[in-house]
Amino acid sequence: MKDPNCGYCMRDEHLDAFGIYICDLSVSSLILFKEQSHPGRCIVAYKDHVSEIVNISDEERNAFFADVNRAAKAIHAAFHPDKVNYGAYGDTGCHLHMHLVPKYRDGFEWGGVFAMNPGKTTLSDAEYAEMIAKIKAHL
Amino acid sequence: MKDPNCGYCMRDEHLDAFGIYICDLSVSSLILFKEQSHPGRCIVAYKDHVSEIVNISDEERNAFFADVNRAAKAIHAAFHPDKVNYGAYGDTGCHLHMHLVPKYRDGFEWGGVFAMNPGKTTLSDAEYAEMIAKIKAHL
Repeated sequence: MKDPNCGYCMRDEHLDAFGIYICDLSVSSLILFKEQSHPGRCIVAYKDHVSEIVNISDEERNAFFADVNRAAKAIHAAFHPDKVNYGAYGDTGCHLHMHLVPKYRDGFEWGGVFAMNPGKTTLSDAEYAEMIAKIKAHL
Repeated sequence: MKDPNCGYCMRDEHLDAFGIYICDLSVSSLILFKEQSHPGRCIVAYKDHVSEIVNISDEERNAFFADVNRAAKAIHAAFHPDKVNYGAYGDTGCHLHMHLVPKYRDGFEWGGVFAMNPGKTTLSDAEYAEMIAKIKAHL
């Protein structure tokens, strides 16, 4: 089921406000996070409008984290971060998704958590397209 | 392999500084986070000193997230948060672990991410023991 007010469900202007759809994975979609203070930052959003991993079956959870793992490996291969952080919040939304945030030694927010949206760094359409091509080449 | 400077490996004073070991799960240990600004906050720490989920096999990853799921369900059952947040950071450490942070509607940090350690709320030993008993009763 889809929620008409959810960007992950609708891939409409709600999503456009913060992300760019890259492609489908097995049970989720891969999204480039427009705020790129952490080069390569993405979101893996589950296919259904469910709140948390506790709301899906073992098989669905395994498939979801296989997608998260595949995306994280692509981010490592494409951008060579020193670590990828993983975070699922969504207190006020109800669509399971995980932020994948590449961290670079001594770079922005290294050694801590990450802001939901630092609101500092956006790229040109050409730069987003180049970043997406790099990720897709490593999926 | 174990790292002698890692609290998750050694369960020594490095762990005591921030957590209380609760019990083993299938491929990880469950730890109560001493800072309890979010009542019920725990950590699920993988059994081995590896950096990220991308460093373990599919089977190990599935088992790890089954443990995370089991712990999250126990936190939901014991404390009835409105959401559980999930975060794995560890930029400067290398031991895979996930913070499970219960959020309560309109409560502390509701609607956002969570601080690594707010440094505000600790409990008495008796209160920690009561919390651990509640979690274990729902595992």
